[in-house]
Formats: sequence, C-alpha cells, structure tokens
Amino acid sequence: MLSTIPSPIGWGADETIRILDQTLLPEEERYLELRTLEELAEAIRSLRVRGAPLIGIAAAMGVVLAAGRRGSGAAGQQDLAKVREACSRLGATRPTAVNLRWALDRMARRAEAAVGQGHELQAALLEEATAIWDEDRRMCDRIGELGAPLIPRRATVCTVCNAGALATGGIGTALAPVYVQHRAGGEPHVIVPETRPLLQGSRLTAWELQRAGVPVTLIADSMVASRLRLGDVRAVFVGADRIARNGDVANKIGTYGLALAARAHQIPFYVAAPSSTIDLATPNGAAIPIEERSPEEIMAWRGQRSAPSGVGVWNPAFDVTPAELVTAIVTDRGVVAPKDVVRIND
Amino acid sequence: MLSTIPSPIGWGADETIRILDQTLLPEEERYLELRTLEELAEAIRSLRVRGAPLIGIAAAMGVVLAAGRRGSGAAGQQDLAKVREACSRLGATRPTAVNLRWALDRMARRAEAAVGQGHELQAALLEEATAIWDEDRRMCDRIGELGAPLIPRRATVCTVCNAGALATGGIGTALAPVYVQHRAGGEPHVIVPETRPLLQGSRLTAWELQRAGVPVTLIADSMVASRLRLGDVRAVFVGADRIARNGDVANKIGTYGLALAARAHQIPFYVAAPSSTIDLATPNGAAIPIEERSPEEIMAWRGQRSAPSGVGVWNPAFDVTPAELVTAIVTDRGVVAPKDVVRIND
Repeated sequence: MLSTIPSPIGWGADETIRILDQTLLPEEERYLELRTLEELAEAIRSLRVRGAPLIGIAAAMGVVLAAGRRGSGAAGQQDLAKVREACSRLGATRPTAVNLRWALDRMARRAEAAVGQGHELQAALLEEATAIWDEDRRMCDRIGELGAPLIPRRATVCTVCNAGALATGGIGTALAPVYVQHRAGGEPHVIVPETRPLLQGSRLTAWELQRAGVPVTLIADSMVASRLRLGDVRAVFVGADRIARNGDVANKIGTYGLALAARAHQIPFYVAAPSSTIDLATPNGAAIPIEERSPEEIMAWRGQRSAPSGVGVWNPAFDVTPAELVTAIVTDRGVVAPKDVVRIND
Repeated sequence: MLSTIPSPIGWGADETIRILDQTLLPEEERYLELRTLEELAEAIRSLRVRGAPLIGIAAAMGVVLAAGRRGSGAAGQQDLAKVREACSRLGATRPTAVNLRWALDRMARRAEAAVGQGHELQAALLEEATAIWDEDRRMCDRIGELGAPLIPRRATVCTVCNAGALATGGIGTALAPVYVQHRAGGEPHVIVPETRPLLQGSRLTAWELQRAGVPVTLIADSMVASRLRLGDVRAVFVGADRIARNGDVANKIGTYGLALAARAHQIPFYVAAPSSTIDLATPNGAAIPIEERSPEEIMAWRGQRSAPSGVGVWNPAFDVTPAELVTAIVTDRGVVAPKDVVRIND
C-alpha cells in the first residue's frame, strides 16, 4: 500500500536532485530538478524539501552536486575546499535539526578520506550519500517494527506535523509504527493536527496517510487537548529534530502542548527518531537553537492576509518537550526511556 | 483611545440592524443593514456577528425586527406568536452560548407582559433590547474594573479568540481588564493566539487591540504552551460562552489546552464573563452542548484548499475547561472561585 506514496527525493536526469515540492501539496504534485547548491539551499530554507531525516539526505546529495561532474579523476585540496564550502552553506539553512549537521559531517569526513587516499571524490561522495539514504530507509523500517507493538489493535493515535514518508528516505519516523501496524492489519486511525503556520499536518500527513489507506481525522491545533480528553486516543507518536543528552526533545512547535495534554490524560507519549537525531553534544533542551521564521507565515496564508499589518509576531518553528513528559524514545537502536538516550549513541 | 474601535452593532436606517461584518476583518471594514429575521439568523450562523454577549444583543434586536413596524398600536396573540417564533428561530442558530437563550427569554417575557397589559409591543421590545445592550456595556465596564487589578503593571497577558469590544456591546469581557489597565497607563501587552479555524485572534483581537493602541504579539495556537513557558506571561484572561453550575467553563476551542499550559507554569487563569453567562440549569461541563461546525472550515481558508479532499475532520467550536483549572471567574457581580458561581446568580 505504501507504493502509492511517491518518494520525496531522488536523483534526476543529468546529475540533478529531483524533489517533490512539498509546499505545493496537497493541490499539486510537482517535482523539481535542482541543478545547483543554491537551488537546493533555497529548497531547504523554503521547506520544499523538509523533515529532519530528509534534509540530511538532501544535504548529502547536495554535497555530491557541489563536488562537480563524475569521472573527473582524483581530487585535490581545491575540491575539498569546495566540499567544505558546500557543507558550511547547507548547514546554515536550518539551525534546529541535528541530522543535517550529522549528514554533512559524514560527507566532509568521507571527502577528506577520499582525497587523502587519492580516490575519486565524486564516486566516494555519491557512495556516502547513497549510504546515508539507505541507512535512513532501514532506520525507518526498524523504528516501525519496534514502535508498532506500542499501538494496540484498532487504536486511535495522535501525531503532529509530518514525520512520515515525506519527511524521510523511508516510511517515516512517527508514522512508521502506524504503517507497520496498518500493513499487519492492525487498523490504526490517526488524529492529525493541521500544524500551523505551514500546515504540514493537513497538507502532508493527511495526504500521505490517505494515499496509504490509513483513516485520518484532521483537527485544528487548538483541538489537541480536547481530542485527547475524549478518551479514545491510546498513544501519541511524534518525530524529533534533535534529542539532547538529557532526553529533552526539540520538535515542531505544538509538540510541547501535545505532551502536556497527553500527561493530563495519562496517554503514552512516544518520540520516534533515528539514532542520528540524538545529539550528545547538546546537554539539554535549553541548549538547542530554536529557529524563528518569518512573521509573514502567521500573518497570511498563500497571499490571503489574516492579520492586520504592523502587529508583532512570535514564530518559533520548534519547541522543546522536557524529558519528563516523554514515555519512551523509539529509535532504530531500541526503545529507551529518555534519560537513557546516552546509551543509544555512546 | 477606545473611541477608535467601531461598535460592532447598532440600529440602521429604516428599522434595520446595522452590523460590522466580522468575517471580512481585518482587510475590510464593511457594515451590513439587516432587514429580516432570516438575514440576522444567517449573520449569526456565519459569524458575521459573533461573541456570546453580542449575539445576545443582536438576537434581542432581531426580536424587535420580527415584531414589525413601530406605532402599529396594541398587540394581540398573533403578534405574540410572531415573537415566540422569532425567539425559537434565533435560539437555534448557535447552541453553546447561553447569553443567546438568556436574551431571548427576556424578550419573550417582556412581549408576554406587554400583550397582557395592552401596551404597544414594538415599543416594549425596543426598550427591552436597549436595556440588554446598555446592561451589557455596563457589565463590560464592571468586569474591566474588577479584573484590572489582577494584571500587574507592564505585564504580558495571554488571551484566546476574541472576547473584546467586537464580542460585546461594550469594551469586551476578557479584554476589558486589559483596556482598563491600558487607559490607566498600566502598559499591558497581549499575546494573541490566532485561533483557528476562523482566526478570530489574528483577524479580530489583534485588530481591535492595535486600534486601541495596546501592544500585541500574535502567535499560532500551537505556540501557546511554549509562550507560557518563556516566563513573562503573568496572567491568562479568556471569555466564556457558558459557565456551568459547578464552575466548568465552555469557551472557544483551545481554551482547555491553554488552561493546561497555564497550570503547568503556575500562571493564573481567569475567565471573564457577564453574570448572564452562568447557567445554573447546567450542572457541569459534560452537560453543555458543543457546536460542531463544517469540515470546510478546517480544509480550506478563503477558497485556498489546505487538506486533501475526503479526509475526516473533527471541528468542535468550543471546549470545556474544568473548574479545577480556573483560578477565578471575573463577573460584573464580583470575582469568585469557580465553585462559588452559584452565589453570583442565585
């Protein structure tokens, strides 16, 4: 059934990166062929390609692009400088997600090794980017297998934003357990908050779940607490953009309020993320940089003004959910209590 | 400074009801002259005129309209039947707000008395509707005076939806203490969640506060918990559509999540409402009918589709905040603990 979900990324013709432009969903399914590093950086900044794992994959592919045409022979220090410059530019596009930095670090190390050993740089980088993508696909599958038993049969679960196939190179993170349950005939039903300001819930999560045949109930973000109070939601599954050493979780704005509501109603709150999301260099949530985006995102929707001009706006893209509100973290390396994330990545 | 806020309702030329069409704000300030009961019912259902106290006033004016031309002499049973029919039709427009029923009951009783005593029906109803409006204006002022001392000087407060001048016949309910503080030089600053799906926060509250010169910070509804966590919000003020006998409060969807966040951060949570909002006939929140509105409100915004067609939608317009999350209820008859509302209206 997942075969009906288009892959959000791939290699295009003539060494381009082919992405599904996620800003146009659900009305239009348009693919873009990105030819330059600047085009990719723009696509990441404007969320045409988004989702912490997916921007890691996209950035890795961007480094391949930056290293130039394949088949141009052994590389030198000049090529390495180009790779480092590309990593630096791509790394600056989104500050919160740690997978982006993690993928770029891998690409930079691989480039250094290739140049040091006199190997062809382009081939080495292509291999590394492909490995990052393949690993992500397997991580998603593993998260799905480990998380599915946490969803009772015929259960209603709640998520936020999009941590599904459109956010990864595979079947998603938060949605992976749902897809695995669905394929096993477990009949899950998903409550999807629309996720203002950019509506990743209604535009992306509802769209991909519907394609996969999973029943969806869309709600406004303000309805989360009331929906959890109804009593039928058996679990909450969210993704993560960064997990700090102490188990605090940065994720899409709204996650923290959802976690408070889950606690108030004794509903298990699970964070599902690849182990690369755990950042042991960040001691706690307060140390995670939170991206603030343009006021325009809140003051208008596709050119339709919804607020008087001149008012102040606060528009953080992420929030931090303290470890104490998280029941467990589901990673490709196991399901752990938030205080034990250090064991996963040490 | 409040003189810069237009009144959302008034008598128009030739015995019509003049309303500010609130669905067109903030882009357009258009007034409509409603000539028939059906036009008024449509305006209430489609939220051109909205806010629990204001729809009570509007409905009272609608009953005047229904009773026919003034100066037509003493009324009989036929006129009374017309009034009862009007009350019944207007009462069915919105199920949650109790002020609507309260105002219509007053109008029906007054009509019965006028007919019983041989008085002119139209004049009596006009007098009653005017009294309802005048009382509402005074109730707002009194709520403002009683609530203002709960806001420290130069404080940031948070509200939800619109419980301001646009929702009442006066300076609002939840915003009344803010306006009184502002006029006294107290320099309040208001955090306004946009309030999906119909954006009463960004379209109406931000607009009227800006007109009054009160600094506003607009946020998405999903940001409420994070904003309260920042530490500078000193109080939350919300309105109410109905307050049950046990102190449970029905108000705009999102209020309950805001109350959970306020409790998590030890921020006082105040409900400000005229005493007519207290419904002693409703034992608790579970007995309050919650209006569910069209899925279209969540699936599109002014014709711009934001969700794939065919997904399920849950769209309750209100939620219930349990009395235990409410610090105090600010009414025109005093500030009371929620468990003591029975004292206010007995």
